[in-house]
Amino acid sequence: MEITHRAVDYQYRVEVCFMPGQYPLYAQDMGIVVVIDVLRATSAMVAAFENGIDRIIPVATVEEARPYIGREGFIAAAERNGEVVEGFAYGNSPLAYVGEDLRGKTIVMTTTNGTRAISLAKDARMLVIGSFLNLSALSEWLVKQNDNILLLCSGWKDKFNLEDSMFAGAVMERLLESGKFGVEEDSSIAAKYMFMSGRDNYMSILKAAPRRRRIEQLQLLPDVKYCLTPDQSTMIPVLRNGELVLLDTTVE
Amino acid sequence: MEITHRAVDYQYRVEVCFMPGQYPLYAQDMGIVVVIDVLRATSAMVAAFENGIDRIIPVATVEEARPYIGREGFIAAAERNGEVVEGFAYGNSPLAYVGEDLRGKTIVMTTTNGTRAISLAKDARMLVIGSFLNLSALSEWLVKQNDNILLLCSGWKDKFNLEDSMFAGAVMERLLESGKFGVEEDSSIAAKYMFMSGRDNYMSILKAAPRRRRIEQLQLLPDVKYCLTPDQSTMIPVLRNGELVLLDTTVE
Repeated sequence: MEITHRAVDYQYRVEVCFMPGQYPLYAQDMGIVVVIDVLRATSAMVAAFENGIDRIIPVATVEEARPYIGREGFIAAAERNGEVVEGFAYGNSPLAYVGEDLRGKTIVMTTTNGTRAISLAKDARMLVIGSFLNLSALSEWLVKQNDNILLLCSGWKDKFNLEDSMFAGAVMERLLESGKFGVEEDSSIAAKYMFMSGRDNYMSILKAAPRRRRIEQLQLLPDVKYCLTPDQSTMIPVLRNGELVLLDTTVE
Repeated sequence: MEITHRAVDYQYRVEVCFMPGQYPLYAQDMGIVVVIDVLRATSAMVAAFENGIDRIIPVATVEEARPYIGREGFIAAAERNGEVVEGFAYGNSPLAYVGEDLRGKTIVMTTTNGTRAISLAKDARMLVIGSFLNLSALSEWLVKQNDNILLLCSGWKDKFNLEDSMFAGAVMERLLESGKFGVEEDSSIAAKYMFMSGRDNYMSILKAAPRRRRIEQLQLLPDVKYCLTPDQSTMIPVLRNGELVLLDTTVE
């Protein structure tokens, strides 16, 4: 069916894009992009700000991150295929930052999916970082914005993934409740229904058999539990001049 | 997380690919591809076989279909953006074939999404056509096959769409019940949950506000009701040498 956008009974749209490769199909008229990589890049980013980091520089390649290994004031973090890249002390585990005093430091980070999504959407008017860790703070800030919002899932190697889409559904539900936002895209309606059907047991959905095997294989269960626990932080990282810094929600 | 495929407690996989552009990411090891374009190409194909058509030749462009307009023994069908292309008497409405005697005839058909998906997957060992019209017959045949099965949604201009994904979830549920098939992909798990949450009212989900406006705009409500009514046919179209013909389920 033809997709048309008509003036309707809401002011702004909130839509879900399931994977970075589809971003160009959904980017039009979207002022704010929320990049989502629940397991684990965007969870790690929020955790790092929660523990005092000054800024995070997302980079596309391992080679760009490597010169920062051991450099004063920097933490070099690199993950590929769910594992810490050889030579690096940090990957994309948020637990690596918990309890650390990161004040005054800069993380230079590259991950399989999350930093790619950031790179694709870097020209949006505003790009912010979402994860279950900052779900409520992010949703409360988003609902005050006067702009269309795209929830951009990082997926897994450009395939659909469940945890990012469920999180997008969780944000969407809060924005739709406001009455200020509406949806036009089927992906957005699907994300809402996925979250509604899974809200009471999303841990169990996310631990469905094939996923659980992969999680156990990589010994990620503590990470997964941490990443799926909502509202551990009120930090919202925002992209400014290619660097993630803390959004001051009292002025923006 | 790393996606790995391990020998587990099922013999074959059944997976869902949400849009044609992702087909290369999901095609590996998939012997049977089910092309799904519920609204409306694959529903129209099943309806045409139900009404006696000999074969359907799917073509990519309107120009390839046009020479068949008015030609003895042929029906030329072309749809773009949900509407019949100018100069053609047929588009992708299944209702155009209902009650017609199509025996001995050939349809040459091009549609926005469905024929593109067929073209992409034409080299699969077997390519069959799915729609709610032949849901039970198709599922019963699939469950007897000894091969991996990919449910390929045609989407809308390479975006995710709800009706194809819900249908994929319906087929998946029946195949998983058999115990012979299992899933590895998140998209497959999501399709199952979408169908489970929507099974009792999928008409209402598929008629959610933005979709309903488009449907009403194109005056498609009778078509939509017809396309979403399961088990009106036992016909399974199969691609052979570039043409869709009727699968003889007594021998295959």
